[in-house]
Amino acid sequence: MVSDGHPRGCIVVLNAGSSSIKFAIHAAEADGVARFRGQVQGIGSRPHLGIRDQAGRTVQEREWPAQGFDHHAATGEILRLLPDLVEGARVLGVGHRVVHGGTEYATPVRVDATVLADLARLVPLAPLHQPHALVPMHAIAEKAATLSQVACFDTAFHRSQPLVVQRYALPRRFHDEGLRRYGFHGLSYEFIVSRLREVAPQSAAGRVVICHLGSGSSLCAVQDGRSVATTMGFTTLEGLAMGTRCGTLDPGVLLYLMDTHGMDARAIEDLLYRQSGLLGVSGISSDLRRLRASSAPEAAEAIALFVHRIVREVASMAAAMGGIDAMVFTGGIGENDAAIRAEVAHGCAWLGLAIDAARNAQGTGRISAAGSRIDAWVLPTDEERMIARHTAALLGLRAPPG
Amino acid sequence: MVSDGHPRGCIVVLNAGSSSIKFAIHAAEADGVARFRGQVQGIGSRPHLGIRDQAGRTVQEREWPAQGFDHHAATGEILRLLPDLVEGARVLGVGHRVVHGGTEYATPVRVDATVLADLARLVPLAPLHQPHALVPMHAIAEKAATLSQVACFDTAFHRSQPLVVQRYALPRRFHDEGLRRYGFHGLSYEFIVSRLREVAPQSAAGRVVICHLGSGSSLCAVQDGRSVATTMGFTTLEGLAMGTRCGTLDPGVLLYLMDTHGMDARAIEDLLYRQSGLLGVSGISSDLRRLRASSAPEAAEAIALFVHRIVREVASMAAAMGGIDAMVFTGGIGENDAAIRAEVAHGCAWLGLAIDAARNAQGTGRISAAGSRIDAWVLPTDEERMIARHTAALLGLRAPPG
Repeated sequence: MVSDGHPRGCIVVLNAGSSSIKFAIHAAEADGVARFRGQVQGIGSRPHLGIRDQAGRTVQEREWPAQGFDHHAATGEILRLLPDLVEGARVLGVGHRVVHGGTEYATPVRVDATVLADLARLVPLAPLHQPHALVPMHAIAEKAATLSQVACFDTAFHRSQPLVVQRYALPRRFHDEGLRRYGFHGLSYEFIVSRLREVAPQSAAGRVVICHLGSGSSLCAVQDGRSVATTMGFTTLEGLAMGTRCGTLDPGVLLYLMDTHGMDARAIEDLLYRQSGLLGVSGISSDLRRLRASSAPEAAEAIALFVHRIVREVASMAAAMGGIDAMVFTGGIGENDAAIRAEVAHGCAWLGLAIDAARNAQGTGRISAAGSRIDAWVLPTDEERMIARHTAALLGLRAPPG
Repeated sequence: MVSDGHPRGCIVVLNAGSSSIKFAIHAAEADGVARFRGQVQGIGSRPHLGIRDQAGRTVQEREWPAQGFDHHAATGEILRLLPDLVEGARVLGVGHRVVHGGTEYATPVRVDATVLADLARLVPLAPLHQPHALVPMHAIAEKAATLSQVACFDTAFHRSQPLVVQRYALPRRFHDEGLRRYGFHGLSYEFIVSRLREVAPQSAAGRVVICHLGSGSSLCAVQDGRSVATTMGFTTLEGLAMGTRCGTLDPGVLLYLMDTHGMDARAIEDLLYRQSGLLGVSGISSDLRRLRASSAPEAAEAIALFVHRIVREVASMAAAMGGIDAMVFTGGIGENDAAIRAEVAHGCAWLGLAIDAARNAQGTGRISAAGSRIDAWVLPTDEERMIARHTAALLGLRAPPG
């Protein structure tokens, strides 16, 4: 491991998606930003790797032929790269981001055969996302059997929610088999809560709405540091309008698509996950920056809808807590798009939120105006760092977070 | 027509459901409660008729054999009964409650061949409800061709909503073909607005959330008398948990039901329209009175979910208006269930709502406590009277309402 303060041990964080595996290398002993970040992208099409150090400098790039190069092979390549990157430090554990922990996993867990079987059983709850995280776990269990693995769940943080919040108005047998509101982005929310405790402990002890706005977006109502409600539900489709996802939708729309358009589950899935949201409404792009740059009225409509849905749901989050004391913006859009923050704040003025235009333009730390009843912040999230914390704690290397 | 003040002309209001046709007879010249109300029920199973006068006394009952007795035949029977009921007064027009007016019909309309064709084209938008209203229109056009007919739409009141509120985050072509948030219960909301203008004109000019709570339930945000937002969307499934309907549901739930349970559109439709809501969650009944009487924890859970969803959505309605000045409870539950009102009010205390326990127990007129920032009312709704007003106005018998 190059750079300052040679750690003796490292934690590797893996985050596997449908065509990529991101990874980060953290010091095992101390909390901090990642020493290296990398990702294998283009799995299935044009696999290539890039690794950057803490300063953002590219330290390694590589390509592979597509054929036979799957998530399993990519995990093997990452394992092979590690000794070089950590320069003699030991890799003490691997922490995985896992989308779905079902009802059982309310905290991170060490991966063993039972856990692997449990997580495989959860695939029907998140068929598009859950399988990707399982392949690297199996690959490591096979190629580096002595390496400790920890699974950290996007759903776990929300298991503190009251049952009335998690329940859909469906017959009980469906709830009991797992058709309930799980919520996602939990590792991000947990990280933000820890950051808010550092920068604004009084707000962190109150009623906070965290806006995680990115290509996937959700809100979370956090009271006394615990999740009370969130906008995503059974899947990552529910709630806000997102880059390409529809957000909340009348279930009758799906019946109509089946009856009138003869669409099946796969066609509807493709429509709602990949063709809707900002992309669908604008017909131009899923990227807010591109929509801002466009003069098309459709782009403005998409942005207005994005903001409108946030404003409506912030109020719903506040209702779940009986009020709101603080608000945090995070995620790619939340951290970087001052105009979105200003528009959301404008829509939340009735709740007592006033932001300071100059602070908002700067976009770091507190952005609420003096005298705002609601304390507002921009705080960068770091889900991988949260995973490193959990992994180190579960391996007995650090005190547990939170 | 018996009873006081023999009107010279009458308006008949028809409200056709899947197995019933309700009707009401109103004086044409003056606004007021119905002179007679009746309904043919059990169409398709055990058709029977009951008619009551203004005092609630049954004035006629009748049964028919099921075979061949459809909505068309039932309409014929109602037409045949009219001369007797109106005692020499002329039937000047028939007003129909029509569930769906699509994007075109933002106000009531005289029924002609073009309108009939338009409304038939809207059947795919409300396949379970729209066809029933069309049969009586056709029957009257055939059996009493000179009788003027007016169609009044449950969706029309909401056409004043901004497009951003009506839009789902779906590709534009779906919005353009009609996949948008229509909202329902519009005739009830319109009536309540007219009543609020009479009893509390200052509140009626402000930002009002109307809670129409019955076997079907929705909320409406009304600003300056115009609908700004509502909880029902493309269909009557969206929004609050209802007697047997699911309310808002992650669209991913339907994909799961198709993939894991192999359910088709009809099976899902039956589940979400008829087996969900209070009935599904409690496993006991769709009727709040029966749930209140039960000591089962499942009954309490169903009630808690019903209230929780209302409280969350009241906040969302307020957000659509940038605040809330008044709240009205109406519909079978809203008018009669003081406990539900108290629980909703408790959940809305953070918005500035305080109700007076004694007034709420009485359940008529203003129920907010002295000093409540939000003015709260219980006002009985009367959709048929709203239809009679519109019909009389369109036929030039009275000034237009509103």
